[in-house]
Amino acid sequence: MGIPDEDIHPVATGAAAETVAKHQEPQDLVFYSGWFCPFVQRAWIVLEEKNIPYQYKEVNPYKKEKHFLEINPKGLVPAIEYGGRALYESLIICEFFDEQYPQHAPALYPRDPFARASVRLWLDHAAKLVVPGFHRILQAQGVDAQQRARDEYAAALRTIAEQAQGPYFLGAEFSIVDAAIAPWAVRDYILAEHRGYSRDAVGEKWKRWAEALETRESVVRTKSDREHYEPIYGRYLRDEAQSEAAKATREGRVIP
Amino acid sequence: MGIPDEDIHPVATGAAAETVAKHQEPQDLVFYSGWFCPFVQRAWIVLEEKNIPYQYKEVNPYKKEKHFLEINPKGLVPAIEYGGRALYESLIICEFFDEQYPQHAPALYPRDPFARASVRLWLDHAAKLVVPGFHRILQAQGVDAQQRARDEYAAALRTIAEQAQGPYFLGAEFSIVDAAIAPWAVRDYILAEHRGYSRDAVGEKWKRWAEALETRESVVRTKSDREHYEPIYGRYLRDEAQSEAAKATREGRVIP
Ligand SMILES: N[C@@H](CCC(=O)N[C@@H](CS)C(=O)NCC(=O)O)C(=O)O
Ligand SMILES: N[C@@H](CCC(=O)N[C@@H](CS)C(=O)NCC(=O)O)C(=O)O
Repeated sequence: MGIPDEDIHPVATGAAAETVAKHQEPQDLVFYSGWFCPFVQRAWIVLEEKNIPYQYKEVNPYKKEKHFLEINPKGLVPAIEYGGRALYESLIICEFFDEQYPQHAPALYPRDPFARASVRLWLDHAAKLVVPGFHRILQAQGVDAQQRARDEYAAALRTIAEQAQGPYFLGAEFSIVDAAIAPWAVRDYILAEHRGYSRDAVGEKWKRWAEALETRESVVRTKSDREHYEPIYGRYLRDEAQSEAAKATREGRVIP
Repeated sequence: MGIPDEDIHPVATGAAAETVAKHQEPQDLVFYSGWFCPFVQRAWIVLEEKNIPYQYKEVNPYKKEKHFLEINPKGLVPAIEYGGRALYESLIICEFFDEQYPQHAPALYPRDPFARASVRLWLDHAAKLVVPGFHRILQAQGVDAQQRARDEYAAALRTIAEQAQGPYFLGAEFSIVDAAIAPWAVRDYILAEHRGYSRDAVGEKWKRWAEALETRESVVRTKSDREHYEPIYGRYLRDEAQSEAAKATREGRVIP
């Protein structure tokens, strides 16, 4: 017994599989991952950017296995164990990495308090508009709902892309805003193939930024082969997915 | 022309009015406030806790006046101006205060990265479950919907209250988690009077924590007289409010 979402390819493939292979040894930091998950990819990108030693462990979060619920009672990936304690929530994990490993360049948050605050505003924009917007367009059924969702998603991306200095959000240096958005740039081909979305329609600034993101080495190294994402996103596109995010989107609730 | 929500008492009253009177002089930091707003109160509590010099300016955010939209394009309070630049979002403002005024005790975030991360987890809980839960119960029409919302809200409060060390969330010292939750403790009499909610039904730990919060000096000093909250909450209780939060709650979207 389980939910249809449990049926996912069991392991990372392609470039991500090579990265996984390099991170099998026990380390102080254990990274509980689902290879397919955009929230996981945020934290994984940060690990790779900062060259932090970690042990990769694959979890199927839809199975809600007891050992994993002891680490994250919400049953979501990503999660980490560090010094015998557990942590979850992708952006909180990313910020923890930046603070716990200050000697590992690059620093992904600016130093100046005001600059930090404005970075936080854009992370808030990602949480409130980009991520839910992606889910809404993915799950929208019917031409009208899809068009509405597409317009909203384009507007959310345009707003943040207009602030990007280029090539990355804050300019020459890759930052937490890039790590937070990159997984949705990597996955937007799904919307292009099935929902009439195009980067061009969003705008030139988004197009250029999305290209910079998806070709960044840490992003490439944490990406699996497209064919294995397909059955997963197929369930969303038919609005059959039973993940927490899918249910929340359907019910008009906050994504956990 | 406007929305019914525009019709609010124009200024703070009671203890809050005295605090406002003390903060009329020009300062580097301008605090754009709506006396009635729980998100404002979070930031206001932090200003009072840390004894930061600020100039208080009252705004009616429902009017979306041009001068205010130039400060916060979302048109929401709280917002601040500091060194000619603007910032908004209550928790981002609070964290900015903590980082920009390190010499102003108390520090509201722990120093240790892991402890900071776990504080962030509880702020995330507040954003995802406590705040939307309060709006849902407030706006719920009909006995069944109200009971469902009441149970969910109680569960959200219980989960976080169970982690409170007492008297405050992290123990003896008041922290950002206390500032983030206090405005909803202050306002829960509305749910008690109209929605069958009681602190007792939530549980002993919440009851004790809520009492510690609502009697904290910074919380008392930023509270207006109950009678002026009444017409505002009346609109929510009849589900007539047209604020961004009310509309989002009605439409099943993320509260901006
Ligand atoms: N807010 C969380 C979301 C994490 C999340 O939803 N992860 C998904 C996989 S992409 C998951 O674990 N889903 C399990 C489920 O929905 O039951 C974060 O940012 O880390
Ligand atoms: N997420 C914002 C919410 C702020 C907010 O919703 N403020 C309300 C007053 S309590 C507001 O300005 N509403 C104006 C409107 O809804 O049009 C924060 O945390 O600061």
